Amino acid sequence: MDTPPAQQVFEATPEQRAAAARVMARCDELASISSLDDGIYRSFLTPEHARCNARVAGWLEEAGLAAWQDAAGNLCGRLAAPGDGPRRTLMLGSHLDTVRNAGSYDGILGVLVALEAMAGFHAAGEALPFHVDLLGFGDEEGARFGTTLLGSRAVAGSWDPAWFDLRDGDGTTLGEALGAFGCDPAAIGSASRAGEELVGYLEVHIEQGPVLEDNDQPLGVVPSIAGARRFRVRVSGRAGHAGTVPMNMRQDALVAAASAVHLVERIADRFEIVATVGQLQCYPGAPNVIPGDCEFTVDIRAGRDHTRDLAVEALTDELARLIGSRGMRVAWEETHRAPAVECASWLQRVLENAVLDLGLNPVSIVSGAGHDAMSLAELTDVGMLFVRCAGGISHHPAESVAEEDVAAALAALELTLRALAAREREENP
Amino acid sequence: MDTPPAQQVFEATPEQRAAAARVMARCDELASISSLDDGIYRSFLTPEHARCNARVAGWLEEAGLAAWQDAAGNLCGRLAAPGDGPRRTLMLGSHLDTVRNAGSYDGILGVLVALEAMAGFHAAGEALPFHVDLLGFGDEEGARFGTTLLGSRAVAGSWDPAWFDLRDGDGTTLGEALGAFGCDPAAIGSASRAGEELVGYLEVHIEQGPVLEDNDQPLGVVPSIAGARRFRVRVSGRAGHAGTVPMNMRQDALVAAASAVHLVERIADRFEIVATVGQLQCYPGAPNVIPGDCEFTVDIRAGRDHTRDLAVEALTDELARLIGSRGMRVAWEETHRAPAVECASWLQRVLENAVLDLGLNPVSIVSGAGHDAMSLAELTDVGMLFVRCAGGISHHPAESVAEEDVAAALAALELTLRALAAREREENP
Repeated sequence: MDTPPAQQVFEATPEQRAAAARVMARCDELASISSLDDGIYRSFLTPEHARCNARVAGWLEEAGLAAWQDAAGNLCGRLAAPGDGPRRTLMLGSHLDTVRNAGSYDGILGVLVALEAMAGFHAAGEALPFHVDLLGFGDEEGARFGTTLLGSRAVAGSWDPAWFDLRDGDGTTLGEALGAFGCDPAAIGSASRAGEELVGYLEVHIEQGPVLEDNDQPLGVVPSIAGARRFRVRVSGRAGHAGTVPMNMRQDALVAAASAVHLVERIADRFEIVATVGQLQCYPGAPNVIPGDCEFTVDIRAGRDHTRDLAVEALTDELARLIGSRGMRVAWEETHRAPAVECASWLQRVLENAVLDLGLNPVSIVSGAGHDAMSLAELTDVGMLFVRCAGGISHHPAESVAEEDVAAALAALELTLRALAAREREENP
Repeated sequence: MDTPPAQQVFEATPEQRAAAARVMARCDELASISSLDDGIYRSFLTPEHARCNARVAGWLEEAGLAAWQDAAGNLCGRLAAPGDGPRRTLMLGSHLDTVRNAGSYDGILGVLVALEAMAGFHAAGEALPFHVDLLGFGDEEGARFGTTLLGSRAVAGSWDPAWFDLRDGDGTTLGEALGAFGCDPAAIGSASRAGEELVGYLEVHIEQGPVLEDNDQPLGVVPSIAGARRFRVRVSGRAGHAGTVPMNMRQDALVAAASAVHLVERIADRFEIVATVGQLQCYPGAPNVIPGDCEFTVDIRAGRDHTRDLAVEALTDELARLIGSRGMRVAWEETHRAPAVECASWLQRVLENAVLDLGLNPVSIVSGAGHDAMSLAELTDVGMLFVRCAGGISHHPAESVAEEDVAAALAALELTLRALAAREREENP
């Protein structure tokens, strides 16, 4: 007998449907808090950031939950565990800042789904054996100061004091901006948490890719956030007159670079990773001159650093042979390297079981994009739940999420909190 | 019995050797007349142009030949046929202007070799049955006003009055520049020649390509100057996050464009022409974004327009299939089209026989670069003799020509003049 295909049997409760509708409306409302007249842009420590934090704090307080702003400008909230005894804390969150000309959901959705879950438990009087803290990080995108994950780095305790001197496009330093925002730079350490007091960190986020849509599923569980390496590669041949050099006497750097672009694709397929040439430039770059040099970027990401590094090794070896066989030269420069971050396997299981309990299929998706969970993984165990977004589009006004999928994410998060509560009661009775 | 390989048996006479040495020294001298302190740059109607014309006029006069400047700023000289009867005129020449940061020989060499040939006939008292006019065109490269071949267009009578309003980088119009150079724009028509009074036009020029060097021969004869078509091609796929879109779900415009670059090369090989992608740009063009669009130039040149057009047709058809099979789109825009110019076959034969008579092998080379002969072909029969240049390099300070090859070019030009003289005496006794 064949296994029947996975059926979507999830049906949201009326409360979950209402909460999802509220999340959608609030995403729209926050989208209107922008420094652009036409389009969404909300960067770190700006007046829009302050208004956004105040609005989210208001929603926390309406729900009867505590709200405050930490020394790094992160918006924080708490669903406190009952009683006075020492309790660990489960952190939920994502970011409230946006790129320029953003969509309404990247980051925001995770904060507001978590807020709804916390509000739901509070309204139902359903006690949890740990504090649940909401974190709306003020900077994940790095749009203002060029350095990403500033909000979650402060919470993870990995803030680098040199960052106070980072300048934005107007020459304002991050230290000055914090002060103007009402934060004391000297107190930045107070934003950090102690790992031993934490249960872990869970983040709900739009997928920013097309895998869930392709699998016809609303939710995915992240095994790891990809490690990336980025290179600038220069292929050098010989420039020449486009009219006077016969084809068989050319050393056309672009023809060689085109082979390199195809090789990058083949290597990615072979290692089951992703690799991209996003920029390419010909020199001298005139329509009537054979390119003598060609420079391009290679971005390689994999769920495991070992796989990524093997792919890089294969690519450099095979490209050297390919370019060398044409009598040309190739030079590599590494411009970026970030290690892969594993999500805790026990948190993956808890999230997967929650999705399965909804009658859905938890698709496993390595996150190719970076997230606040990367910072917090230095501090505590992290888990991530991905929500389907239309066409995999993000960082664009066309970003779109279905309300039913938001209800599913909320339902999965509620089941996850209950499972973690059961586990906490067992481990720390 | 096998045909023995062509042997180079040419030995220059002492006079030819001395003349070639003079040509080399004069190329060096003209190279010092530049608007750059470091490098050669001599553009149309500049003080350098005037000094260069004056220097060449001086050499003509030293040789006992008439010299003058025409209404378009071209330097002219004449070896007059003896007697008072009506005579036709054979034109010899090339250009005296340069690109920025030029070499010493492109254009210049042809003017100075022709001057030596004329001076040699005059010194030897060897009468010719036609006037021989030297033309040192003031603008072939188009470096100042963006439009090429201005000097030879004036002589061909195809000057467009709209050109008087062309402006250089400083806003000076071509009309103003002519006036400042001492030329009367209203008299521009006086620079033009009447086709029926001409024997033809011969131009000696460096090859600007590597074919002669590859064939180990100093001289080539040009069957035609290639017709060119130039396109801007845009391939449109779908942009996406370099980390989140799996390889099999991408529509990467650069991967498709890389296939197009290889297709351009294959088409060129198939039609035995030259085709070049010299510029390529990815959009949005960030290292971490899959290119959604890719724009590139295609430059296609062939000795015959029909071949070129068949190649363009094959390329557009096959590229449409290739891009379409990936679910992407391609759009073409033609940005330039110039017809091929045939050199007169009788002049090719005369030049070839002259080279053969020197014991050399006249290599047939379609000129992929444009030349003043293109303008003059509208007026009269044209022929071109190519001289080997090191590495095929031109438009660069490394441009280099061997003195022995200059002597060979001079010897071939002398034999050509004698052959044309014999023909003229037969046809117009």
